[in-house]
Amino acid sequence: MINTEASPREVRRLIREGKITTQTSGMCDGYAQANLLILPKDMAYDFLLFTQRNPKSCPLLEVGDTGSRLVKRMADNADIATDLPKYRVFENGVLTEERLDISDLWRDDFVYFLIGCSFSFEAELIAAGVPVRHIEEGKNVPMYLTNIDCDRAGVFCGKTVVSMRPMTPAEAIRASAVTSQMPRVHGAPIHIGDPEAIGIKDLSKPDFGDSVTVKDGEIPVFWCCGVTPQSAVMSAKVPYAISHAPGHMFITDVKNSLLKD
Amino acid sequence: MINTEASPREVRRLIREGKITTQTSGMCDGYAQANLLILPKDMAYDFLLFTQRNPKSCPLLEVGDTGSRLVKRMADNADIATDLPKYRVFENGVLTEERLDISDLWRDDFVYFLIGCSFSFEAELIAAGVPVRHIEEGKNVPMYLTNIDCDRAGVFCGKTVVSMRPMTPAEAIRASAVTSQMPRVHGAPIHIGDPEAIGIKDLSKPDFGDSVTVKDGEIPVFWCCGVTPQSAVMSAKVPYAISHAPGHMFITDVKNSLLKD
Repeated sequence: MINTEASPREVRRLIREGKITTQTSGMCDGYAQANLLILPKDMAYDFLLFTQRNPKSCPLLEVGDTGSRLVKRMADNADIATDLPKYRVFENGVLTEERLDISDLWRDDFVYFLIGCSFSFEAELIAAGVPVRHIEEGKNVPMYLTNIDCDRAGVFCGKTVVSMRPMTPAEAIRASAVTSQMPRVHGAPIHIGDPEAIGIKDLSKPDFGDSVTVKDGEIPVFWCCGVTPQSAVMSAKVPYAISHAPGHMFITDVKNSLLKD
Repeated sequence: MINTEASPREVRRLIREGKITTQTSGMCDGYAQANLLILPKDMAYDFLLFTQRNPKSCPLLEVGDTGSRLVKRMADNADIATDLPKYRVFENGVLTEERLDISDLWRDDFVYFLIGCSFSFEAELIAAGVPVRHIEEGKNVPMYLTNIDCDRAGVFCGKTVVSMRPMTPAEAIRASAVTSQMPRVHGAPIHIGDPEAIGIKDLSKPDFGDSVTVKDGEIPVFWCCGVTPQSAVMSAKVPYAISHAPGHMFITDVKNSLLKD
């Protein structure tokens, strides 16, 4: 079990050395975590525009210079090719491989995109007395493909992916207030209550991550999710792309509280 | 004098017909106004990245599809080539011409960028009892080049441009609270007080717009300004670009209050 109070630098070192390969929910309390997408430069304009048009799903935290693996704004000299616990490789929109390191796949025309992650507001929810069930149960957050269309940009389109946390209606109100103050990590929920209203058939069967317990008197609360770009990559049949594995995030050196302005 | 309660659609029609050619501060109370930059597609990636890296100066509201003059998200079928009161043409980073219409200059490889404008929060400031001096005096807002470097993206770099409103310290505190809730139109001030601290030598000589009265007991309050992209275009010596003339904005159909989430 990783100490939740370990520094991001220390946790990234353990990840780089292959000593942490698990999902990162709950690690480095208070520090923002980020989704990753890596694309060849010739796809980068369309994707950058996609993030602008879908800011609730894809709040951009940092974009690398073309060919550069260096993260310099959201972390102090991190390496995007080694510092996440698990990566996914997509060819023509199909997941072909999971890896712990992508150093040997890196190319001079790659551009990385770091996208805000809802793990970043979980510490704030807990501080506000809102339960975060998947942390309580030691699981990855449940994520679902919805029927909500993304706003198309060039080749990129697809359906919005959401993460879900069950809570009471009173807690849902509090959670909305807390997360609406954090637009750079998905902001306020996109939906509360009836899963079918956004095209989710069975809450117990998430498309990504793990199923969690929904207690009596609780309703599901849904936030836009940074896995949405993976859905867009699959829909666009992008020739080549690399992402984080769902839940296996990049841990930044930036406190969540600094993402509020 | 334009009725401040005229609808954006009506004001855009008057602009399109050449009946309004003035700056737009104070028009269409409560509706967001936007800065404009138009670039050929081969410069668009670098600029899109520039906006991502400089969000306080360049909060993007809408980006057109390549070649399209149509504004469809921030307005209902507006034409970006006719619906602003005045445009500026830049060649190799030098201002070469001002125009009331750019229809005949439009090219299939042009991409437009609409960027949030501080005029959008002025109605909110007035509602909060904060004076907006240039509106009181019937002038354009004073704008200044600072010594604050933008975060470089590809060819784009340059200094941050700010707008200035004088007010008492108590009003400055209230103005900070109000505008921090509106990140899509520049958000909280970037500086309060001493102009020299950000490289402004003489408050009475703005680099763009008009000089306004600073009363006894008032301090200048500075916000990042959407003219910053014009500074970046000049610094980058971009072969060809078109912008709005400072203060002569695109008036959207979107209420400022909707830009808060």
